[in-house]
Amino acid sequence: MPLPSLPARLSRVSSFLAMDVLAAARTKERAGGDVVHMEVGQPSAPAPRRVREAARAALDIGQIGYTEALGLPSLRERIARHYRDAYGVDVAPERVVATTGSSAGFVLAFLALFEPGARVAITAPGYPAYRNIFAALGIEPVDIAVDAASGWVMTAEAVERAHREAPLAGVLVMSPANPSGTMMGREALARLADTCRRSGIWFISDEIYHGLTYDAPAETALAVHDDALIVNSFSKYYCMTGWRIGWLVVPHALVRPVETLAQNLYISPPYLSQVAAEAAFDAVEELEAIKAGYAANRAFLLEELAAIGLGEGPPVDGAFYIYRDVARFTNDSLAFCRRMLEETGVAATPGLDFDPDRGARFVRFSFAGSMEDCRQTVARLRAWLR
Amino acid sequence: MPLPSLPARLSRVSSFLAMDVLAAARTKERAGGDVVHMEVGQPSAPAPRRVREAARAALDIGQIGYTEALGLPSLRERIARHYRDAYGVDVAPERVVATTGSSAGFVLAFLALFEPGARVAITAPGYPAYRNIFAALGIEPVDIAVDAASGWVMTAEAVERAHREAPLAGVLVMSPANPSGTMMGREALARLADTCRRSGIWFISDEIYHGLTYDAPAETALAVHDDALIVNSFSKYYCMTGWRIGWLVVPHALVRPVETLAQNLYISPPYLSQVAAEAAFDAVEELEAIKAGYAANRAFLLEELAAIGLGEGPPVDGAFYIYRDVARFTNDSLAFCRRMLEETGVAATPGLDFDPDRGARFVRFSFAGSMEDCRQTVARLRAWLR
Repeated sequence: MPLPSLPARLSRVSSFLAMDVLAAARTKERAGGDVVHMEVGQPSAPAPRRVREAARAALDIGQIGYTEALGLPSLRERIARHYRDAYGVDVAPERVVATTGSSAGFVLAFLALFEPGARVAITAPGYPAYRNIFAALGIEPVDIAVDAASGWVMTAEAVERAHREAPLAGVLVMSPANPSGTMMGREALARLADTCRRSGIWFISDEIYHGLTYDAPAETALAVHDDALIVNSFSKYYCMTGWRIGWLVVPHALVRPVETLAQNLYISPPYLSQVAAEAAFDAVEELEAIKAGYAANRAFLLEELAAIGLGEGPPVDGAFYIYRDVARFTNDSLAFCRRMLEETGVAATPGLDFDPDRGARFVRFSFAGSMEDCRQTVARLRAWLR
Repeated sequence: MPLPSLPARLSRVSSFLAMDVLAAARTKERAGGDVVHMEVGQPSAPAPRRVREAARAALDIGQIGYTEALGLPSLRERIARHYRDAYGVDVAPERVVATTGSSAGFVLAFLALFEPGARVAITAPGYPAYRNIFAALGIEPVDIAVDAASGWVMTAEAVERAHREAPLAGVLVMSPANPSGTMMGREALARLADTCRRSGIWFISDEIYHGLTYDAPAETALAVHDDALIVNSFSKYYCMTGWRIGWLVVPHALVRPVETLAQNLYISPPYLSQVAAEAAFDAVEELEAIKAGYAANRAFLLEELAAIGLGEGPPVDGAFYIYRDVARFTNDSLAFCRRMLEETGVAATPGLDFDPDRGARFVRFSFAGSMEDCRQTVARLRAWLR
């Protein structure tokens, strides 16, 4: 008896090419190959000492049960305080929702805000999970192509254009962005928020790379739009990827709907991770030292990659990615990355993960690893690109 | 400027009344009230010592990163072995998917199998999150009312009837069940599986209460249907609720679709919880001692509740719930539970959480706590019910 058929929407949810590159890199390593990991979107540093100590203390107490669906009240209060400390913005702790990583934050926000068929604007290039979660939930992604001409960010004008074609239900921006590293200043955020407010469009701001900026600090969308939904996480600046803990800030009217969804879809975020995350805010010294490492990697790569023909692409205001135009070498970034891994051992992510159209001529390098990784990358690619 | 409108589907996702009872119980406690917690669906025991030690060892090593989206290979292998050990069933480790609790298992399974609008049969009474996750994902719940006449389980005949009315895409059963505690034997599972196979209906078996049985052990649906989807978790028998770790077993054809969904919706389950869960299988001695406590609670309550007029309801083959008919006392189980909490301090869950229709005359008592809790419950209710 054959299996019943599978839903059509599955075909619109695609795997990350980055994962395939990672798998190929691991295969090469197991076969004794020497791989430089420039493909991984996570910090190489472990979580700060204080974070691990908080988890250890909770383990010693023993009872690791469900928490409130919205998260431990003390964690929600600590996150609210962070908005005052880091941005000078007042956020009521009730509006903070602890989530099982930003992944859960997206699902909760999208389900709380959008009907199936809703049109939501995202940038291309952009984080690939957006479009895939949309596909799984029946939401229609509206690609806003960004490039040098638009300063690599979603502009209010582009959103207005898309909204005129057919009404948008939401706008989702990330700043600093993956893969571009580009940041939206307060002015750009304010103009976009204004457009959303005037047109009845939900404004979602993915602030997962906040803290990882190399010139000016990032501005939160809450500073310009009190009804913006903020998605954030302890995975990047706070080096807590595998803990799966993040948060949302939502308007008061959304708290109860999000709570109900969270009860049913997640019950609660992992307990140990919540306790540990609360300690992360006090680990600034350790975290700033890690960031100083990224800053050194960034400065080195920006200069050295340019010297070997990889100088074209968005600015790297924040995050830990360099997104580079490789059109003078290839028009197939996937094949390019495969060959680069095979022939030089340098693993990087093809732009096609981030931009179905123009991604074929871009490659993303992550510099969340060591300076030695960066040196090796430049040394190996210098010879290979010639 | 008012907020944009919220999607209609939100109104179909309801909060657990159990959570409201829990909140009322906490309020009463904070005011100095003495509350007996018979409402909580989680073990009062902490995770086994070995589990906590495994987590501690992982913390000492430090790097707590993302894992493969399907989970750590060693955990998937260990779970596969469990099927051989516990049920004598061969499961390829590739078919095992580690999930962020059974909550994630449901979302992944439902998205992988069902189109929006798909009709999926569930029992009433049943676990309330099913119908709420369905509402969030646009799946249509088809209630199969179960009672004494059907042996409190979903029968093949009832499924065939529902399928004739309009085609079903799936059937979801839980055995032992929440709230009824009722178990389906191998024969009943086989007949249901047969119906599903013949009619092209997906068969999902929620086996979260396996291990917690008081007479015969539970049978896995995989023993009678190799293409069944199994949802399970470390939360109940293994006492790991707040760790948020569970698993799926899926047919080979589903592995890749589920992997893609998991990459995008969850990235990976929490790392520490995966490492800790692997150790849970070796903690049988400690876990069986905890279960012996439940067994004593169960025997005490079955006898003593009957003696005070709460003897009617489904058998308690497994899980840690006693679901009791309170029709001789009330036709509004919510008001009944509120008054009971207020006047006796005993917190229990109104049946309306589990059965929108007949739940008004049922109450669920959880006996996952101590014998003293059970004694207090009977002593307080004896006086109150008179």
